[in-house]
Amino acid sequence: MIGAAMADPFRVEYPILFAHCDPAGIVFFPRFFDLVHQTMEDWFTWGLGERFADLIMKRRLGIPTVATTTQFLSPARLGDLLRVELSILKIGRSSLTLAVHSFVGDRPCFRAEHTICMFSHESQRPVPVPEDLRQRMARFIVEPAATSAAQPPAA
Amino acid sequence: MIGAAMADPFRVEYPILFAHCDPAGIVFFPRFFDLVHQTMEDWFTWGLGERFADLIMKRRLGIPTVATTTQFLSPARLGDLLRVELSILKIGRSSLTLAVHSFVGDRPCFRAEHTICMFSHESQRPVPVPEDLRQRMARFIVEPAATSAAQPPAA
Amino acid sequence: MIGAAMADPFRVEYPILFAHCDPAGIVFFPRFFDLVHQTMEDWFTWGLGERFADLIMKRRLGIPTVATTTQFLSPARLGDLLRVELSILKIGRSSLTLAVHSFVGDRPCFRAEHTICMFSHESQRPVPVPEDLRQRMARFIVEPAATSAAQPPAA
Amino acid sequence: MIGAAMADPFRVEYPILFAHCDPAGIVFFPRFFDLVHQTMEDWFTWGLGERFADLIMKRRLGIPTVATTTQFLSPARLGDLLRVELSILKIGRSSLTLAVHSFVGDRPCFRAEHTICMFSHESQRPVPVPEDLRQRMARFIVEPAATSAAQPPAA
Repeated sequence: MIGAAMADPFRVEYPILFAHCDPAGIVFFPRFFDLVHQTMEDWFTWGLGERFADLIMKRRLGIPTVATTTQFLSPARLGDLLRVELSILKIGRSSLTLAVHSFVGDRPCFRAEHTICMFSHESQRPVPVPEDLRQRMARFIVEPAATSAAQPPAA
Repeated sequence: MIGAAMADPFRVEYPILFAHCDPAGIVFFPRFFDLVHQTMEDWFTWGLGERFADLIMKRRLGIPTVATTTQFLSPARLGDLLRVELSILKIGRSSLTLAVHSFVGDRPCFRAEHTICMFSHESQRPVPVPEDLRQRMARFIVEPAATSAAQPPAA
Repeated sequence: MIGAAMADPFRVEYPILFAHCDPAGIVFFPRFFDLVHQTMEDWFTWGLGERFADLIMKRRLGIPTVATTTQFLSPARLGDLLRVELSILKIGRSSLTLAVHSFVGDRPCFRAEHTICMFSHESQRPVPVPEDLRQRMARFIVEPAATSAAQPPAA
Repeated sequence: MIGAAMADPFRVEYPILFAHCDPAGIVFFPRFFDLVHQTMEDWFTWGLGERFADLIMKRRLGIPTVATTTQFLSPARLGDLLRVELSILKIGRSSLTLAVHSFVGDRPCFRAEHTICMFSHESQRPVPVPEDLRQRMARFIVEPAATSAAQPPAA
């Protein structure tokens, strides 16, 4: 499926703020996860056309994190502009596995494989990804091969 | 080496604070990583007998995170007492892979395999784990088998 | 009323963590307000015998901040042990004005006059301080004179 | 000095993020102070033409908070767009007193009188506001009267 393999990821840019930085002057790693969440919020709002606040407060859904596998490849510093790219590696019934890659200029910063699930605050259980959202998510699905450029080269 | 396999992990308990919790009333996942870091700070200070502040400010070392693989198994709520257990899965020349498991009562909460490295703020490069610390770390090393109870059963 | 003037404040101690500190290696001022809130949580739980989590989740009350007037007198650094003292300057019908003073050793760090109100998450309105809590608060009320030692001397 | 009294404040808008919000679904008050700091960072970078990161890392200056007097007038919620306005109430030799007012639509949210000082990380002492910055700050100085519209009406 060539079209999917060529799908553009969702892209945002965030300035690194004083509040993100630790005594070494670089982003404290838990703050990168704040930025992963901010990226998902902006993806819902701007990429999927579903205000994240509406997902939470009107649909009464949430997106708890199930698991994350994240490599921190290089630091980001106060004043850096962090570019974050989000695409979908896998959609299950309730769960989504996202690739969230970040860069300062061309330099890779962190690279996360991040699994969330759709969760109902009414039933307090995972629920299927709503069909309208699932359809709008389709264009962010990448073929596994499409992310290989960002992986370390095989020996 | 039976002794190592029986090694006790380093244990701490933290109350879940209002500041950790999100609009769903549960810990926002980046805050769990704040608690992972707090556990490492307390491990240096109380488990290894090296005040974490001295590691940073006197030895001029740091412990940046290289990678983390974390599963979030169940939520923690305001007022819960989170028990965190830290042990060492692997010590390399400069890097340490830690198992950081947390529980609310007997219920597993998150489980991280967390790799840090020793980093010099003088040379701005990774450096070998100082020998005195390496020796004091030995009693926290677990044999792979020792953590198996917390792993999903093999097929 | 000599007894009140001699009232002991509620006292807690918190280690300054890496997460509290900024690139200058000192506590980033918004984190002091996290510590003010943590002090109030511990005051409810340990000083008033009302678990803060129960206040929020069982009584369905909250304590939003109405106003704060805070002086930052000296920095706190990674590894410092911050002693925080809380007493009551004034109890109104729904509102409480607290004095929250902090110290590193004998050195004053920040000094806040912090006003909160009792707020019902059911009615979404301020409500009177519950009578049982009001009674248990009495011993933390200080006469204005009792805090004068910590104030700048009058000309 | 009519010109000054008519000075426009520096204005920015920030979306309220999940990470800002507490279990009541509204901004946790210490996070408002993160937003005050973010406003000051953007003011330096975009209002004064001095990248905040350069102020810290090239000029080796900092802007510790000396004092804040803040009223929290109404809550902000996930998804709200917070408009923040910053102007200067007073410039001393080393210190600056800022008015930082915020709004959700036309509704006032918080209102801070926030005093910072210029601090040298070299000498570890307050230093005079650099002359080039002082000149660029002039257009943000408001006459006391100019802020009166935002104050509660006198009886």
